[in-house]
Amino acid sequence: MSLFDRHRARLDAALDALARGGVAVAPPTAALDAAAAASFRRLLGSSFALPGVTAPGRLGAERSPWGLDLAVTYPTASPPEWLAAAEAVRADWAATPIEQRVGVLLEALAALEADAGRLAHAVAHTTGQPTAMALESSGPLGFARALEATAQAYAAVKRVPPPERRSAAGDGAPERWFERRWRVVPRGTALVVGTATSPWEAAAAGLFASLATAHPVLVKPSPSAVLPLALVVAALRRVLVEAELPADVVQLCVDTADAPVTKALAREPAVGVIDYAGGRAFADWLDRNAHHARLHLETPGLNPVVVDGTDEPAALYRHLALALVRHAGQTVTAPRVIFVPGDGIEAAGVRTTFDGVAQGIAGAIEDLLDEPGGVADRLGALRSEAALEAVRAAQPLGRTLRESRRLEVPGWPRARTFGPLVLATNAGRERDYAEPRVAPVAFVVATDDTAESIERAVHGVGLHGAALARVHSVNDHVLEAAADAFARSGVPVSCNVTGGDEPGTTLATTGHLGLRDPDFVAGRFRVVGVDRAVEP
Amino acid sequence: MSLFDRHRARLDAALDALARGGVAVAPPTAALDAAAAASFRRLLGSSFALPGVTAPGRLGAERSPWGLDLAVTYPTASPPEWLAAAEAVRADWAATPIEQRVGVLLEALAALEADAGRLAHAVAHTTGQPTAMALESSGPLGFARALEATAQAYAAVKRVPPPERRSAAGDGAPERWFERRWRVVPRGTALVVGTATSPWEAAAAGLFASLATAHPVLVKPSPSAVLPLALVVAALRRVLVEAELPADVVQLCVDTADAPVTKALAREPAVGVIDYAGGRAFADWLDRNAHHARLHLETPGLNPVVVDGTDEPAALYRHLALALVRHAGQTVTAPRVIFVPGDGIEAAGVRTTFDGVAQGIAGAIEDLLDEPGGVADRLGALRSEAALEAVRAAQPLGRTLRESRRLEVPGWPRARTFGPLVLATNAGRERDYAEPRVAPVAFVVATDDTAESIERAVHGVGLHGAALARVHSVNDHVLEAAADAFARSGVPVSCNVTGGDEPGTTLATTGHLGLRDPDFVAGRFRVVGVDRAVEP
Repeated sequence: MSLFDRHRARLDAALDALARGGVAVAPPTAALDAAAAASFRRLLGSSFALPGVTAPGRLGAERSPWGLDLAVTYPTASPPEWLAAAEAVRADWAATPIEQRVGVLLEALAALEADAGRLAHAVAHTTGQPTAMALESSGPLGFARALEATAQAYAAVKRVPPPERRSAAGDGAPERWFERRWRVVPRGTALVVGTATSPWEAAAAGLFASLATAHPVLVKPSPSAVLPLALVVAALRRVLVEAELPADVVQLCVDTADAPVTKALAREPAVGVIDYAGGRAFADWLDRNAHHARLHLETPGLNPVVVDGTDEPAALYRHLALALVRHAGQTVTAPRVIFVPGDGIEAAGVRTTFDGVAQGIAGAIEDLLDEPGGVADRLGALRSEAALEAVRAAQPLGRTLRESRRLEVPGWPRARTFGPLVLATNAGRERDYAEPRVAPVAFVVATDDTAESIERAVHGVGLHGAALARVHSVNDHVLEAAADAFARSGVPVSCNVTGGDEPGTTLATTGHLGLRDPDFVAGRFRVVGVDRAVEP
Repeated sequence: MSLFDRHRARLDAALDALARGGVAVAPPTAALDAAAAASFRRLLGSSFALPGVTAPGRLGAERSPWGLDLAVTYPTASPPEWLAAAEAVRADWAATPIEQRVGVLLEALAALEADAGRLAHAVAHTTGQPTAMALESSGPLGFARALEATAQAYAAVKRVPPPERRSAAGDGAPERWFERRWRVVPRGTALVVGTATSPWEAAAAGLFASLATAHPVLVKPSPSAVLPLALVVAALRRVLVEAELPADVVQLCVDTADAPVTKALAREPAVGVIDYAGGRAFADWLDRNAHHARLHLETPGLNPVVVDGTDEPAALYRHLALALVRHAGQTVTAPRVIFVPGDGIEAAGVRTTFDGVAQGIAGAIEDLLDEPGGVADRLGALRSEAALEAVRAAQPLGRTLRESRRLEVPGWPRARTFGPLVLATNAGRERDYAEPRVAPVAFVVATDDTAESIERAVHGVGLHGAALARVHSVNDHVLEAAADAFARSGVPVSCNVTGGDEPGTTLATTGHLGLRDPDFVAGRFRVVGVDRAVEP
């Protein structure tokens, strides 16, 4: 049975789900049991082996935000070597039928899912995510995105017409026939640049979309979060080797913070697609310097919240507090700026002051952190000293509503566990509150009224982008106006949603991220006709 | 009966054709009869009326390359006025159901087809195209492209999932439900920049794709070729007015060569999509200065021919000569550089020298021009004095194989009718032969061998792009190697095709142009989810 046939039912289900709105994020099939922990611990201090890689160079200096020194080293090479290896397999991979490419990807995906416990530990100990979150939400989100990207690519490639015969008559010449064949032409070598906070789930869609559309892919992890992507690349290469396909279709490009290679790779004319999830500064650099490539960028952005009013203040405060506490505000959809009218709101029929709303959110944060597992399973650790520095730098920029302080977590005495800093400021201080930060810092911003809240939020989104906008109101006109304004800027909107999960991540589907754009997958390749004269 | 229902069968046929490779270019339904001529002549010297436009400003100074002074003036306004009018109709057009948008477009298309004789005269007397060509090939090509773009947009928008309800359970919070609706979000106001040589067929796909995907569109014609696009915009606005939709969904933005507005429009952040077919210099300017917009560029490029050998030399020479003669080498797929091994080729089993091949092509050009209608119905006129200047400037860059001289055409004593200049040079003179020209200039370039021909052709394509590459060989390996190399660069390839028509234009389908890329239409819009809490 071919790999494609083995996973055919799953692909069909994913194609069906696509038509209904997206692949659902499924609960994990693996567990955080002793076996998973042991399997992860065996990696510590090891020389990580990548199937088919014999390069002698080795790099690696990851330290867990929980306090563990990983001491894993990875094989490495240089940009010219990676590019040459990608070029060497290009034609073979492009000539591999889409069914076989998809079969390889779904087989590797199944292997990763079966080993999701180890992947969760690897994510937790490179990013600071709580291990439970890494297993239960960010891992499955990545699996769903990888599956959806693969299914989308399959559908897009299958829309390419079959060969056709046509007559080239006309202008007095005798009738001639030719056959036209359509070729799927990848844009070049693909580059996936990993992030330090969500290495797997942020890379999954771009990686699988580029591979499925016949690109050789260079995976360049953040130096602080190599291990999760190393496990992913190893799983893919293992399946490629078993299928007797060239393993260099996907390569791991490890560098260090001191000698980064990303810009050198991104500047290469042979690189035709770049996926990057991470900080705004590098995204802007790519925008300016990598015109030759199709860019798919996902930056944290403003993620504004417009609070106009609510029937359920407790649920609202808890919902926002959860989003701020979850991985210490480092998720891509974490709210960063909460706009509240300076003269307060109606909350369940009660006039509530600006400070009342702010204290409601701050109090809900305390409650969540005080619950069992509040720190270990929700907050997690800051990915880097730079994130901690961002908290300290923000401190003087507003009136403190809640201080960020280090919280103890049993078993991890050196963990970088800091709760959210919540500051109050006013709408005129855009430079302070809108600065993009991936850190546990949130501003509650006083506006003249909700009209100004929406206007300020849309303005900030125009400057810095956003992965999600939230609006809370009991007034339909307000919800509509805000939804119109944010959607027009390309930002997904969540109106009055107060469930426990964060929209776009664990809650439902892969849909709230760029993957839903029709060109996320289909824009990776061109379709080129090759005509050839034939006998009639 | 709604407009959509009226054209439903045609849309369904187009969707079906898409799956099989593209909408076929159909013969014209209208004729170049006395009525069409009279209808065109009534426009001469007139104040062109655009339905729903009352602006007092007027511009217009078109002169026919055939020698006629058109003396038509058009209503005009300023970039801020056009942008404000587009913004004013944006929300209405986006809220118009896709069926209604498509109905409007297909109704306008039918009106244009019924009036294709007048459009052909307008194209001929602004571009210099032969009137018969404007009616029989470039007009129908534009109709097919408009239909295909509309059908593609319909299919892409229909792939957006329907609303769905989902549960937002998780993290200990009580279960909440929300409804997710997907919105089609256009990238902004669309700008279509017209060309001086093929104003209708080059603009058709972008114009109809942007309108169908809910963009307000600004149509900025070349100052020398306003009339064809004015007829198109008028037809669209007439249907919009009749359907009680805002006519400013599509606006005609007329400027002059002395006071151009295109850069000002392209720089506007509100402009989210730009379609431009024309010279390389402005395409490069857009690449550098209009990052905020999605660009669809179509530039003439190198259009290389690799001649390695042939079984049918006479058919090959005639085919190349036709492509060089047709509208004096100003079509988007006209060959510009013909690579031939310096020591000649095997032609139908006979060793033929480099000069033999070159003379074969030059002789076929003479024959075609000498046939009845060779000048009036095939060659046509140079669109501008600049095109004539390009011929003169090229003259010293090679050994003359065929001179370009003015040819008389009965009835048009002032027509700018010049046959192709054919020059011989060698492969080292890339700067001379690869310079992009839209003029009747072709180089026959001597190479060491076919391997060098392919290498030089691919190099030139990398520098200047190409709309079509042609390869002629009796050797499968050569055809495959060349097809691989060109297709990889995104360039359609024609192998040994010698029919009378030029691939990609009259011959068969719309397929040989950017429209076949899966993101040509689907990349114009984003799909954004808006979630809203609902009762379970």
